[in-house]
Order: sequence, then C-alpha cells, then structure tokens
Amino acid sequence: MRYINELREGEMLSETYLCKSKQSLKTKAGKSYYSLLLQDKTGTLDAKVWELSNGIENFDSMDYIHIEGQITSFQNTLQLNIKRVRKSQEGEYDPSDFVPTTTKNIDEMYNEILTIISKMTNPYLSKLVNSFFVEDKEFIKAFKYHSAAKTVHHGFVGGLVEHTLGVTKLCEYMAANYPLINRDLLISAALFHDLGKLDEISTFPENDYTDDGQLLGHIYIGTEKVGAIIRTIPNFPKSLENELKHCILSHHGELEYGSPKKPALIEAVALTYADNTDAKLQTMIEILNGADDKSEWLGYNKFFESNIRRSSK
Amino acid sequence: MRYINELREGEMLSETYLCKSKQSLKTKAGKSYYSLLLQDKTGTLDAKVWELSNGIENFDSMDYIHIEGQITSFQNTLQLNIKRVRKSQEGEYDPSDFVPTTTKNIDEMYNEILTIISKMTNPYLSKLVNSFFVEDKEFIKAFKYHSAAKTVHHGFVGGLVEHTLGVTKLCEYMAANYPLINRDLLISAALFHDLGKLDEISTFPENDYTDDGQLLGHIYIGTEKVGAIIRTIPNFPKSLENELKHCILSHHGELEYGSPKKPALIEAVALTYADNTDAKLQTMIEILNGADDKSEWLGYNKFFESNIRRSSK
Amino acid sequence: MRYINELREGEMLSETYLCKSKQSLKTKAGKSYYSLLLQDKTGTLDAKVWELSNGIENFDSMDYIHIEGQITSFQNTLQLNIKRVRKSQEGEYDPSDFVPTTTKNIDEMYNEILTIISKMTNPYLSKLVNSFFVEDKEFIKAFKYHSAAKTVHHGFVGGLVEHTLGVTKLCEYMAANYPLINRDLLISAALFHDLGKLDEISTFPENDYTDDGQLLGHIYIGTEKVGAIIRTIPNFPKSLENELKHCILSHHGELEYGSPKKPALIEAVALTYADNTDAKLQTMIEILNGADDKSEWLGYNKFFESNIRRSSK
Amino acid sequence: MRYINELREGEMLSETYLCKSKQSLKTKAGKSYYSLLLQDKTGTLDAKVWELSNGIENFDSMDYIHIEGQITSFQNTLQLNIKRVRKSQEGEYDPSDFVPTTTKNIDEMYNEILTIISKMTNPYLSKLVNSFFVEDKEFIKAFKYHSAAKTVHHGFVGGLVEHTLGVTKLCEYMAANYPLINRDLLISAALFHDLGKLDEISTFPENDYTDDGQLLGHIYIGTEKVGAIIRTIPNFPKSLENELKHCILSHHGELEYGSPKKPALIEAVALTYADNTDAKLQTMIEILNGADDKSEWLGYNKFFESNIRRSSK
Amino acid sequence: MRYINELREGEMLSETYLCKSKQSLKTKAGKSYYSLLLQDKTGTLDAKVWELSNGIENFDSMDYIHIEGQITSFQNTLQLNIKRVRKSQEGEYDPSDFVPTTTKNIDEMYNEILTIISKMTNPYLSKLVNSFFVEDKEFIKAFKYHSAAKTVHHGFVGGLVEHTLGVTKLCEYMAANYPLINRDLLISAALFHDLGKLDEISTFPENDYTDDGQLLGHIYIGTEKVGAIIRTIPNFPKSLENELKHCILSHHGELEYGSPKKPALIEAVALTYADNTDAKLQTMIEILNGADDKSEWLGYNKFFESNIRRSSK
Amino acid sequence: MRYINELREGEMLSETYLCKSKQSLKTKAGKSYYSLLLQDKTGTLDAKVWELSNGIENFDSMDYIHIEGQITSFQNTLQLNIKRVRKSQEGEYDPSDFVPTTTKNIDEMYNEILTIISKMTNPYLSKLVNSFFVEDKEFIKAFKYHSAAKTVHHGFVGGLVEHTLGVTKLCEYMAANYPLINRDLLISAALFHDLGKLDEISTFPENDYTDDGQLLGHIYIGTEKVGAIIRTIPNFPKSLENELKHCILSHHGELEYGSPKKPALIEAVALTYADNTDAKLQTMIEILNGADDKSEWLGYNKFFESNIRRSSK
Repeated sequence: MRYINELREGEMLSETYLCKSKQSLKTKAGKSYYSLLLQDKTGTLDAKVWELSNGIENFDSMDYIHIEGQITSFQNTLQLNIKRVRKSQEGEYDPSDFVPTTTKNIDEMYNEILTIISKMTNPYLSKLVNSFFVEDKEFIKAFKYHSAAKTVHHGFVGGLVEHTLGVTKLCEYMAANYPLINRDLLISAALFHDLGKLDEISTFPENDYTDDGQLLGHIYIGTEKVGAIIRTIPNFPKSLENELKHCILSHHGELEYGSPKKPALIEAVALTYADNTDAKLQTMIEILNGADDKSEWLGYNKFFESNIRRSSK
Repeated sequence: MRYINELREGEMLSETYLCKSKQSLKTKAGKSYYSLLLQDKTGTLDAKVWELSNGIENFDSMDYIHIEGQITSFQNTLQLNIKRVRKSQEGEYDPSDFVPTTTKNIDEMYNEILTIISKMTNPYLSKLVNSFFVEDKEFIKAFKYHSAAKTVHHGFVGGLVEHTLGVTKLCEYMAANYPLINRDLLISAALFHDLGKLDEISTFPENDYTDDGQLLGHIYIGTEKVGAIIRTIPNFPKSLENELKHCILSHHGELEYGSPKKPALIEAVALTYADNTDAKLQTMIEILNGADDKSEWLGYNKFFESNIRRSSK
Repeated sequence: MRYINELREGEMLSETYLCKSKQSLKTKAGKSYYSLLLQDKTGTLDAKVWELSNGIENFDSMDYIHIEGQITSFQNTLQLNIKRVRKSQEGEYDPSDFVPTTTKNIDEMYNEILTIISKMTNPYLSKLVNSFFVEDKEFIKAFKYHSAAKTVHHGFVGGLVEHTLGVTKLCEYMAANYPLINRDLLISAALFHDLGKLDEISTFPENDYTDDGQLLGHIYIGTEKVGAIIRTIPNFPKSLENELKHCILSHHGELEYGSPKKPALIEAVALTYADNTDAKLQTMIEILNGADDKSEWLGYNKFFESNIRRSSK
Repeated sequence: MRYINELREGEMLSETYLCKSKQSLKTKAGKSYYSLLLQDKTGTLDAKVWELSNGIENFDSMDYIHIEGQITSFQNTLQLNIKRVRKSQEGEYDPSDFVPTTTKNIDEMYNEILTIISKMTNPYLSKLVNSFFVEDKEFIKAFKYHSAAKTVHHGFVGGLVEHTLGVTKLCEYMAANYPLINRDLLISAALFHDLGKLDEISTFPENDYTDDGQLLGHIYIGTEKVGAIIRTIPNFPKSLENELKHCILSHHGELEYGSPKKPALIEAVALTYADNTDAKLQTMIEILNGADDKSEWLGYNKFFESNIRRSSK
Repeated sequence: MRYINELREGEMLSETYLCKSKQSLKTKAGKSYYSLLLQDKTGTLDAKVWELSNGIENFDSMDYIHIEGQITSFQNTLQLNIKRVRKSQEGEYDPSDFVPTTTKNIDEMYNEILTIISKMTNPYLSKLVNSFFVEDKEFIKAFKYHSAAKTVHHGFVGGLVEHTLGVTKLCEYMAANYPLINRDLLISAALFHDLGKLDEISTFPENDYTDDGQLLGHIYIGTEKVGAIIRTIPNFPKSLENELKHCILSHHGELEYGSPKKPALIEAVALTYADNTDAKLQTMIEILNGADDKSEWLGYNKFFESNIRRSSK
Repeated sequence: MRYINELREGEMLSETYLCKSKQSLKTKAGKSYYSLLLQDKTGTLDAKVWELSNGIENFDSMDYIHIEGQITSFQNTLQLNIKRVRKSQEGEYDPSDFVPTTTKNIDEMYNEILTIISKMTNPYLSKLVNSFFVEDKEFIKAFKYHSAAKTVHHGFVGGLVEHTLGVTKLCEYMAANYPLINRDLLISAALFHDLGKLDEISTFPENDYTDDGQLLGHIYIGTEKVGAIIRTIPNFPKSLENELKHCILSHHGELEYGSPKKPALIEAVALTYADNTDAKLQTMIEILNGADDKSEWLGYNKFFESNIRRSSK
C-alpha cells in the first residue's frame, strides 16, 4: 500500500483510503465540488473532487473509498486531485492499514490481565470482574480493539488494554508493598476505571467523542455500567459496591479534573496515582518517540507545562 | 413540652428528647459514665449519666429517651445531670418536636409541583416524571419529608419540596421568557436535580451524610436513579435520556463544585442558574431571619465571602 | 442595497458602505495606497484603493462612503478593488443598514420598562428613576439606541433596552417570590446596573470601547452617574443611596470579574443572578441561532468552557 | 494614668477609659448586668457591672467613662469588677491616651507633602491638589488625624499621612529615575490614592469600617470625590481626569484585590508598586517591632504566607 | 519506664523525660515559676515548677531531666507539679524511649538500598552514590536516624530510610516496566531526592525545622550538596550533572509546591510520581492506623481534602 | 552597513549577517537546499540557498557569513535568495551591528555600581561582593556584556548591568528610608539577584536559554555560585550566608514564579519589590518606546493583562 506519509508531489495514485470527512461545497463561481479528508494509519491528506462527473460514485464519510488522481501542492501542502472514486469492497483493503495500533501484542497483554484476575479471592468482586473480562465475548472484543483516548496517550488500537494493564500492574505492586490495601478491591477498580471509554469514544477508525461521551463522560458511564451488573449478583455487599464505585468516580483525583468526589479510601488514592503515573509516563514516551530529529530539547508541552528534553543514555 | 432553648440553671426536668449521640466513657478515677447529646427542634444539650444505677435503662443513640434530672452549669454552659432514663414509647412524644420544619405548607407546595407536571406534553418525560411524583407512594412520602441539605439552606423537613418547587418555578419562568428552551426537558431536570439527596442525606431526625452520600454524592446517585427508571419506559429516546442526565450531572455548573461535566445545553445552563438563584436567596433569607438582634451588619458569611447587611425597608 | 454577505467574485459594485477603518500604506515598490475596512450590518469587507487618482475624493474612517469598483479574490477571501470613492450624502443611505439591530420592538420593550417603573412606591427611588427614564429625553434616546456589549451578547442596537428589561423582569419575579427583598431597591438597581455602558461603549455604528470605558469601566461610571443625580434630590436617604450604589458596584458578583465589592445585600445577590441568567441565556441563544448548519454539536465556546449542543425539540 | 497593660490582679482602680462596646445581658438567674470592653492606647480590658445600683450612671458605647472598681481574674484573664461608673468630662482625660499614634511628627510629615506639592507645574493637577491639601482646612485636619487601616499597617493616628508620604516619596524617586513618567500625574495619584479611607474608616478612637466603607470601599469613594472637585475646575482636561481616576481605581493592581481595572498607564503601574512597597515594608516593620521576645523566628504571618525572621545586624 | 500516655491523675512520679521547652514566667502576684513541656515517644505533658527552691537544679530545654512530682488535673488536662528536678545522666535513660521510631528494621531497609545501589552500572553515578551511601560513615549514621518530615508522613526515626527506600523501589519498578527511562539516573535521583532533609530538619529528639531549612529548604540544600560532591569526581559529565540536579530540583512536581522547575525529563516525571505515591499512601496508612476507634469514617483530612474512610476487608 | 529593517524588494545585496540558524532541507522534487535565518540588531530575515554550487562555502549556524544575493518577496514577506556565501573574517564586520544594545553608557553604569559597593561596611559581604565585581576580570567582562532576559525587558547587551543597577539603587533608597533594613545585606542581595542569568542565557549574539538555564534556572544557579565563593571566605557567618542565599532564592516573591521559598526577611521583601518595580517599569518603557505609531492605545499586553495606553504629557 502507498502510505500517506510517503506521497510525493506529482505522483499518480490509485489506492484505497478511509474518507474521514466529506463536505459538499461551491466554488466562488457557483460550481459544486467535494472537499475530503483521507486517512490511513500514517496520517491524513486533503483531497478535492473538482468535477462531479460520471467517474464519481456515491460514498459517504467513514467509507473506505478507492480513488484515482494526482498529488499536487497548494500553499506548501500536498493535496490530492481526484479523478475517479468509488467505495472499496471489504477484502480489497486491510482495515489495520487505517488505524494506529499498539506496538505490543494485544492478546499477550490481555492474558496478563486474565492472570491477575485469576488470583482474586473475593467471591463478589471475582464474579463481577469475570462477568466482564471472561464471560462477555462482545465486551472482550470491544475492549481489546479500543483506544484509551482520542489523542494524548494510548490513542491507538489496543490502547485501552495497554493502559488498563499498566495501571493494574502498578496497583498490584502497591497492594504488595503497602499494608492495609484491599488487593481485590484495588485490582477491580483498576480494571474498571476506564470502562466508560468504550462508550465515550467511538471505535476505530473514527475514534472520536460520542454524544454519550460529551454529555455524560466516561467516569459516569463506567460507574453506572458496573453498578448495573452488580445488581445482578446476589448479595453483593452494599458497602463493597459503594467502595468500588467510589474508586471509579474519584479516579481523576481532583474535582476540577472531572471526578465528582475526591478519593476517600486508600484504594482510591492508590488508583489515582497508578492511573496518573501510567498516563504521564506513556505521554512522555510518545513525545520522545515522536520527535522528528535528534535534538535534545523537544519544545514546549502543555500537559507538562515545560520544554521536554531527552536524557543521556 | 419543655424546649431546650428555654431551659434554666437549677431547674428539675422530666421530659423526652432525641438522643443524638451516646458515648461510654471513664472518669480519671476509672468509673464509667455516659456522655450524651440530646436534641429537639430548638437546639442541643449536653447531658451526663454519672451513676449507672438501676434507674438507667438500656437505650441507644437515635432513640427517643425520657429523662429525669437537673440542669447544672459547667464552664458557662448548661448541662443536664441525668438521674433516670428510659426509652420513650411511640405516642408519648410528637416527632415533629424534634425536627426543624419548613414554615410553608408541604401539601400545598407539593400540589403546585403536581400542577406544573400536569402541563407537560412530551409523553416520555411525562411518563418518567409521573412514575416518581404521582405513582410512587414511597418516593412521594420520602420526598415530602426530606431536607435539601444538612445545613446551609433548606436544612429542614419539607426543604426538598420547597427547594425543588422554587427551582422548578424559576425554570418555568425561563422557559416562558426565553426562546429555544425545551420546557418539558427543563422542568423534568428541575424536578430531578436534587433527587439524589434522598440517599445522600439520611432522613430526620438524623439528617446526616450517609455512606452513599459521602462516597458517591447526590449528583451521581440521582442521575443513576433516573437512568434506571428510563430503562423501564419503552422507546424512551436515547438522545433525550442523555440530555436529561446531562442536565442533572452538570447542575452544579463547575467541575470544582462536583459536576463531572460543564453545562452544554441551554436547559443545563438555565437549570444551574435557577438552582443557584433559589439556593443563594434562601441562604440569605435564613441569615437575615436567623440574626439575633436588630443590628444592620450581621457579620461575615463564608458562602458570600462578605459581611452581610440588612437593607432598608 | 447590495449587502456584504451576498457579494460574489467578479461582480461590479456601486454602493455606499461605512468605512470602519482607513490606513494609508506603501507598496514594496514605494507607491501609496489605501487599505480600508468596509462594514454593513451583515459583515465586513477588505477594500483597496491602489490608484490615488482624481476619482478618489477625501474621506475618513467612520464616514459613509460611496464606492465604485470590482470584487476580486485574494487568498480565498473576497476583496474590493476601488476605482472611485466619495463621501455619501445623508439621505443617500439608510443608517439602519449599517448596524445590527434587535429583532424585537424597541418602543414596546421601553414601554414595558415604563410600566414597571410606574408601580414603584418609594418616593426617592421613584424620583431618581423617573429623572432618567421619563424626564431626560437625551438619555432616553441614547438608551434606546445603545448596545449592551461590544460583542458576546446583546451587541446590537436596542441591546441595552433588551438586556435591561430582561434583568428587570427577572428581578420583579424574584421580588414577588422571595420574602425580605426590597422591590423598589432591586428594580432601581436592575434599571441602572448597566447605565455606565452608555459611556463605556461608543454608539453605533462604531460600538467600540471608549477611553472612559477602558480606563474607568461601566461599573464605576454608572455608579458615579447615579450618585451625581442623587445629590440633586433633597433628603435622599444616605443609607438608601449606599445600598443602591452597592448593588451597581457589586453586580458582577466577584472581584475578579471587576466588581470592587462582593454582594452584601439580598438585593445585590438577586441582581447578580438576574444579570448572569439573562446574559448567559442570551449568549446561548445567539450561539444556537448563529450556527450555520444543522449539526447537533456546535463546537467549543470559551464562555461556557464546553462544547455546545442543540437539545431535542 | 494607669494604663491597661500595667494592671495587676487585686488592684483597686479609679480611672477613665474609653468604653468601646457595652452589652446589656442577663445572668442565668435572670438578673441584668452590663458587659463592657474598655480601651486605652495600650490595649483592651473586659469589665462587668454586676449591680445596676445608684452608683451606675447613664453612659453609652464610645463614651469616655470614669470607673471605680477592682481587678479580678477569670479563667487566667484579668477582668474589671465595676462598682461605680459615670461619663467623664472633657478635660478630665487626654484623648491621646486612648488612641495609638505614629511615632513620627505629623506636622513635619505634612510639611514634606506640601514641599512636594509646591514643585508641581501642571496647572490643573496643581489646582486640584491644592484645593484639598492647602485650601480645605477640614480635610487637612481629618487627613492628619486619620489612620490608613483598621489593622495590618499604619493603623494609628497619623497613619494616613505617614503612608501617603511614604508612597509619594517612592513615586518621586520613580519619576526621577525612569523616563516617560508624567511626574505631576503620578504625584497627584499618590496623594489621592487612599483619600477614600477618610470615609471608609471612622476616625479614632473608633477606627472601624463605616457603612460607606463596607458597601462602597475606599477605591470607589476616593475616585468619586476627586471627580467631584475636578468638575469645579474650569477646563480640566477630560483625558487627564480619566488618567488620574484610572490610577486611583487601579492602585490595588489586581481585580481580586478590589481594583475594578488593571493598571494601563505607566503611572498606574508605578503607583501600585509604590503603594505595595510602602505597605509591605511597614507591615514587616510592625511585625519586627511588635515581637515580644528576642527570638529570631517570629512565627507565621498570613500576609507574607511565611514564617518571619529577624535578620542579622 | 512510666510512659506519658499511661499517666493518671493523682499519681506520684519519679522519672526522666525530655524537656522539649522551658519558659521562665511570673504569676500575677509577681512570683517566678517555670512552665515546661516534657516529651517521650508516646506524647507530651505540661509541667510546672512553682517553687524554685533548692531541689531545683540547673537545666535547659532539650535536656533529659529527672523529675519528682505529682500528676494533677487542670481544665480536664493532666499536668505535672514538679517538686525536684535535675539533669539526667547518660546511661540513666534510653534515648529511644523519647523518639517515635519506625516499626520496620532500619538495617534491613538500608541493606535493601545497598542492594539496589550495587546494580548500578554508570561509573559516574555509581561513584557519586557510593561516596554517600557506602563511604561516608557520618552520612550513613545520620541518614539512618533521620525522619523524613516534622509531621505528616514518616515523621519518626528511620523515616528517611523508609521513605527513600519506598520511592527508590517504585522507581526500580518504573525503570523495569517503562522504556526510555535511564535506570541509573532515576535510581540516583530517588536516593538523593530528600537528601536535604538532613539539614532542613534537626535530628531527634528535636526534629524541628532548622534555620537552613526555613530559609533555604531541602530542595535547594540537597541539590547543592550533590553538586559539591560531583565537582570532586573527575570527568563527571556536565549533562548528567544537570539532569540529576534537575530531577532533585523538580521533584515536588509543581512550582507552587516549592520546586523551582517543572519536570522536563522522563526520569523527573517518574520521580515526582514515585515520591507522591509513597508519601500519600504512607499518610493514608498513618491516618488509618492512628484512628482511635473502629468507626468507618475517620473525619476530614486537609491533605486529601476529604473525609477519610476505612475500606472493607 | 545595509540593515535588515531597510531592505527593499528587488535589491541586490552583498553584506555580512549573523546566521542565527541553518537547516538542510529537500524540495518536494528531492533537491537539497539550505533555509537560513539571518540576523542583525534591527531584526531577522529568511534566506534560501537553492543551488548548492561552488560559490557556496562551508559555514554553520552562529557564524557571521558574507552573502551575495537578491531580495525577493514570498507571501508578502521579504526573502533573500542567496547566490554566494562564505564565512566573514573577524575585522570585516562590527559585532555590535548584530546585537541590540542598551542606550545608556555601560561603563558609567558599572561605575555607579562600584560606588555603591565602596560604601559597604560589613567586612564579609564587602569581601564577597568585591571578589566578584572588583577582582574577577572574567566575571566583570561577562557581566557588562550580558542581557537580563531573552525577551520581555532588558533583553540587550548591557541589560544585566542596567537592571542590576536599577534594582540596587531602589534598594539603596529603601535602606535609607525604612528602618530595620540591613543595608549591606540588601545591597549584596540586589547585586547578586540575577547573577545566575550569566549561565541561564547564552551570551550575545545567541542570547538564548542554555541547558543549565532550562534544567536548573538562574535562581538556583546564582545561589549556588554565591555559596561556592562564600565557602572560600574565612569565618563568613553561617547566619549571614543563609540570609543572603534566602534573599536570592526568594526574590521572585511567589512559589509559582519559581522561587522555592517565600520572603521571610525584610530585606527579601524589599528585594522582591525592587526587582519587580524595575522590571515592570522597564517593560512598560519598552512597550511605549516600541509602539510604531502615535495612537494612544497600544493594544493588549499579556504581562500587564490590560490594554496599554500612553498618558498625557
């Protein structure tokens, strides 16, 4: 496949891309044309269909489309001038070419999660966690494919597994090294803390905020979802339910970060630090890996409110 | 009844009070005694049982107890020295003597709410609101009796009805005077906005934060509760559900006040101002009514971050 | 008239516009030309006078000018290439074509204000309010024509009347529904709260911050103005003067929003919520009405710190 | 005179003090008594009149009263048990014994101010300043006697002169050392910046916030007062009036400190630093001079948000 | 030994305590006496020497003193009435009775640190760390005995070792689980991050802020100290020196927490989360262990800005 | 010399400039070219070397280069099309043409500093100050040439001398006018307060943040440097060392401005106001002098969070 980040001015192209957005516009002279945003896993490309002639078939945004055309340059940026376009057939393209994906093995990561789950001893929490991570095939499939964010960190296929595993392992470390922590409660909270992201962000290749996500947010959605399953487990202790929900609700640590409650339990405190540690280290790793050249100082980053620098080997 | 705010040093007492708290302590000499906090609707009173003799029957905190004893004075404060104590029988006392109560008529206020509800036209919202406010007898009874707060404003029996009515009427005014507002959505949101207070704060005479309240908060609890009933109403539009839940979730207006989302809909904006207006005006009214003497300036209030002053008639 | 938002590339134009700004510049080759910003009530247009020949008469910024020329396109934006220009004569154009105007009837709104005023009973406040809103013809004329803001909300002719009426009616509602509020004091404060805007913002078509506005602000200006008239009313009670001025000074509610005092009176608290409610609901209405297409989500708004969304009908 | 800070338990007293406050109370047994707060320049003293017999004449708070009685001790604090009390006659006491006073010479400081004024050259500003500081005898008398604060810094007779001189001299230094500063504008602004304190705080011995002070504040009051006199000076330039008022309005430097505008002129910037420098250095001097013992570290101070320490000689 | 938390009213005492403070005061009748604060590892005790007779020998604050006297009660608190007092001899008391001490084994913890150090491979960092933790006997002795705080968390003998080990192990975990982290740099930074506490807080039994601590703070002191030793190591890379110092300077994570720089390196980010995690979990553990009774809710904690609750077992 | 701010489109150029940056890039067609940023004291200029032919000799960024080429225009900005380029020889150009420089006389300002130093009487502080400002020739040379900032205020050659003198003179004024200030301590602190800027910012013509500057900051660097010299002065009092270092560490006044400690000494308070006053007045002067035209209002400035305006003469 001819990836977007390798295209050169002047080249003739016949390829399938994901049509991320499609606008129907008019030139100043009143003639209709399409302005498209094409995407593959390496980036995005502006494209225009100036002549809505017979080579231009019906398609919509979020369709995979096969285009023929030429790369031109407008104001120093590449642009695709499309002559022919049609919807691509399933099988004609490999969906994984159109979505950024974790560099790690998703199944291996998922198995690590299962191993951690298998060590749980509290019958209620164990039943609850299993009903999601072991028994619910649809959930498992979605969970493995989802990102953990639209941008920032873990914004790729497998990102939700990778981040959830990173947080859960940190929580395991804390439960092993600090007394008084209820291990099964903390592990359950870690596994569920970003559950709501499945509904807050649409699946790839779209990976954008949903209506639910914008109006309710993953913190509310995830807590409600866990609560709904708990109600199906006989005799689940009310106190334990409150504690688990509290950990999910408070995991952003501060009201101004969207948690309606501050952490009041040692497990809630542990979870907020585990989440933050994994998120911030991964953000730093993505910045360092993503920097183009080998300069030491990589520019200002608004999340860290600092210029970022590579350290010595 | 002999109210706490009328007691005088030296007087002999034979009366029923609510035992708000009971501690079993030891004197420095090692002798056991009880330290109690008694309450009626006019205030609280320290009490001691120095001799755990045969006149002292079993009782617990939150029991209504009948005591005999004498009022003494310790470090300028009145204290009750109890000689005899037993649990009071239902009928022996009037529970309304032990809880502060709205000065307005609760049934009249509730009827005003029902009138507003009767004008709703959206079938889904109407069904939802009716299932709480018309059909659920247990909910209605609890709602009428509950306070809207532990302290600050509307912290009395009937307070939740009074505050909910005040907010809903302000929302009616806004829906009538500003275009684009979806009246039924806004009225529903106003009616449900403090629904979670039923679980966040225990009923009178206790009126204190519950475990649910401290760990989850009324914003989460109320939204989840509304969501649970919505799931029982066939074909309730997903979009409308999201909008209503969003109004409840965002009604504190700012993340740092415990809302996990900022208002994104005009109805959510209207609700947050209606809630704030009713709450702040009532707080001011309680300050002005509660001030002991007739001085103009009533001292510093932390909610208003200002000294408060009566205005001219 | 040929409105700016209807112009098309290539068209020849002979029309009057308001010259919002005029700069005298030199090309890189050293030749003088004018760069103008033209305005009507539908928008603004860049214009150039490349040849300062005999068809180009004297004019200045804020003049209404009659131009002849052709619409061209530069970097995707329309631009007017002017061949002839002269000042327009009064009568040759309709000033209302050059200023955005409320969609409501200004006189009707003003009469609503007069009706509210006629119900006042405090003789001092009534005399004060009448001396502005009934007796001062110059004030009345200016007040009816003024905007309530440069941008954001009510930034159009009649905006000050519309906003003042909106706030005053909310205050009437509060005075009728909440005890202890001094109605006449609150109504007077509502009527005067944005009085200083007459001096803070210049009249249309300029509608920009004045020197007074930037150095002193409408809160100070309005309070001082009310104070100056109060001094002409015999026996106006000092206490009432202080209360009224306090309401105006504190109506932004918080020091960081430019009020030098926080509200200390119930009327001051009521006014700050009435002002905020009317301003925020109108801002929301202008966003919803101003959105181009029919998409649900309308993008991020910095005043609400949220993406904004239409709600269901 | 027998000063309050020298009284000892058991001593019999016959002396005049200022009665700062007077409350009429009842004992638990229902008998009336007075609770007083007496004051001289060295401190305050609790006093009780237990027997309202014929030796107890009429008096009110803020009266100078002559008392006879005995010093007792209650809960480790001295208390005066009053047997006889009557209003003192003027001449019977020296008012300066009852108010804290600057250690500097007020007339010398005032003459320094006059010298600075005499060097002004702008005719309008000079006329304005003279109309207060040279021609208005009542103003001069009040200005010399006033404090610059209720507490914190310069809270003593002569404090307003001392602080105004300190700020004005710093402004003179800045005008002499930094280009572009309009000296007369800055000097005028310095002289008037705390003018409103004359109305914000009552005169000694009361020295407490007035109704004007709490509702309007010295920033508004002083600016309005200067504006009123400016209107009596023919042809006072509007621009200069705005600039001077802006300097007074903005002299707290930040909105959250009660200035409705941030400094926009170099003179306004200079004034805010001069005011802050004099205020903070004087606050530090009062802390260092007021510390009882010779320990290096003097405890936490909330204005400096730090423990305070003496430095080496 | 007779510990302070076991004393009872009326008991006669002959025991050694640490004299934490000593004040020489006068009674109201003018008689001199001493007011002392005595301390052992279980708490503190007010003590008075009313008669400065011949049984009262010379001693000073921070001396261990042997007292004879009787326990009395004043306003519900125990107080020691001292009849005889003299300085205790070394050997007469066990210093460990007077200081709170970690419940863990200090030598074992220190050996864990040494094991981690032994795995370092960077020659410069290894040499630097060894020069402190292996070669400097005085440093090792002080480090093992020191607390990590005056109060809050780890405020006991061995606290600095315990906290440093906790942070370093978390850093080891991060270096093992997240790519791009320079392990030796991070380990070194963890070991040195609270080095300055040795000078910021005096050693036990005083354990209070020093002059250095209050004026300079442990962040500056520790960084300077590491810098001084680096200068003695030939060819220590300048870049590595900057990185290590940066990690120490920035380890509080935010400017407002006293770090003059925000973290700019992945190791600095990792360190700030490791430090925070260990500190907050230990704070929570101390709250949970320190709570007197078995109630679930333990009251408001200002560090967590929340009520704290035990979680289910 | 032909300065950058006087260049015109079309002109042929043969001149020396400083090459501030040099990037080696490829055209879309794959051909290599250089993109340069040239600088003199009047501004910067984009330049391209399209043909890497034999007239193009070796050079690097921060070299002074002699170029031949023509001025063209690209998207309304001037660009230099370079035909020939070589490194310039020392002597061929005047370095002062390439760096912005104070308008004051550096030697005269430095002599003013020396005069102030000569009046110091404390032997330790005097020795310390002299070892930098009198005896260390290398330091003196660097200090005179350095800027006090990358941008904002005093960002030119001689800026560090000018700012240090301005602050020191203000401190002299304070020491003379306010009691309790230790003059020599305050003068020393003023002289050293920005010492760390010598390492935080590279010398002209680069004048950019160094690795030390970004990782450690001038506050830490300067304090450590003073500490290192103090250690070479026998018997320098520890207390005085702490005080001086504290003044340097705390001179930004607030933790969030990068000071790890808030001012705790009167000298530290004085220094922070002197530093702020000189910095803010100079910033205002640079804004007023730098404004192009004669309009009163000069636009919004983020440091002052206000529009800035010239005041009347």
